[in-house]
Amino acid sequence: MKLHGYFRSSAVWRVRTVLALKGLTYAHVFHHLRKGEQSAPDYLRLNPQGLIPALETDDGAVLTQSLAICEYLDEVYPAVPLLPSDPVLRAKVRAFSYAIACEIHPLQNLKILKRLKGLGFDQAQTDQWAQTVIADGFDACERLLDGQAGPYAFGEAVTLADVCLVPQMSNARRFGVTLRWPRLQAVEAACLALPAFQAARPEAQPDFEG
Amino acid sequence: MKLHGYFRSSAVWRVRTVLALKGLTYAHVFHHLRKGEQSAPDYLRLNPQGLIPALETDDGAVLTQSLAICEYLDEVYPAVPLLPSDPVLRAKVRAFSYAIACEIHPLQNLKILKRLKGLGFDQAQTDQWAQTVIADGFDACERLLDGQAGPYAFGEAVTLADVCLVPQMSNARRFGVTLRWPRLQAVEAACLALPAFQAARPEAQPDFEG
Repeated sequence: MKLHGYFRSSAVWRVRTVLALKGLTYAHVFHHLRKGEQSAPDYLRLNPQGLIPALETDDGAVLTQSLAICEYLDEVYPAVPLLPSDPVLRAKVRAFSYAIACEIHPLQNLKILKRLKGLGFDQAQTDQWAQTVIADGFDACERLLDGQAGPYAFGEAVTLADVCLVPQMSNARRFGVTLRWPRLQAVEAACLALPAFQAARPEAQPDFEG
Repeated sequence: MKLHGYFRSSAVWRVRTVLALKGLTYAHVFHHLRKGEQSAPDYLRLNPQGLIPALETDDGAVLTQSLAICEYLDEVYPAVPLLPSDPVLRAKVRAFSYAIACEIHPLQNLKILKRLKGLGFDQAQTDQWAQTVIADGFDACERLLDGQAGPYAFGEAVTLADVCLVPQMSNARRFGVTLRWPRLQAVEAACLALPAFQAARPEAQPDFEG
């Protein structure tokens, strides 16, 4: 498999985490987002959306959208499952994941912040925008874990919820959000104690820039 | 089951469509979004996020996030499946669904447009924002269907992709977007010829306001 990515992208980070949790090996192809390399003709031929991540499977299929890739990997490589077996709990794990992937991340990613700057926002205003979006979203996420045992978001096994949370916590720090979510922070710490989460961090990637 | 919703919400519309496709009966509970009823104390006790939809199951579980609810319904009521059986095709259906649910809808929903107005955007600017977000997103969606047979988004069976597309097409019209996506428009027309899609339309809901 080949993963098309960029060290800092939260969406790619999710896929790296799942690949590491499942012990799958793959080749990296790097596309420097800030230099616009995801819009190069060669990449657009592969993925007309010009988004990362994209996963090229061994059969030559090109899969896009991080959560679709994560669900695919979970279906095809079911060892170390990303979702519990109970349907209600699966729904709660997915709801938490979407609370990040649909309600927080799209509102603070590079593309949207560029759009806001194009409309006249200065750096302080875009930072404020990102901070508000993340803080509101994490308030909701913290409540979604009410009554759920740790150490991970949904109990004693890592799930897709943890896979989504860790990169978003990193974004929160990058935008200077004051962390006020003890449960989310404890989950993040439990995750980062695991080798798979360590291996998936941006700092551990070959294309990392400090 | 009880569905907490509002006639115009795209996210609720997705769940209504799935319930109708699967022939499931349920009670409606309406929360008028523009009057802020989703923030009433009674509802916040049920769903602390104050978002719709929420689905109360017969066992008393409260499920949130429309796509998590759709996947739950598909797992518990597998007749009329929302996803194909092939893992690569499942990933493509999910990717299309997320291209709408993560990349378009969160950037043009009522909450975000209110936030933009609070930052000084006037009506024309928020409309322009929504139009751009939808048009860019639909350009990508149209390409995601390259090589896929009709009449529906992914062939001869309705999938989650169609469930997400139809409400977003309606939003496009509401914001005055010029439709330029022949494949998406043909898919919408095929869907709206089905009784389940007819039943799920906002105009068919008891709380509809013209």
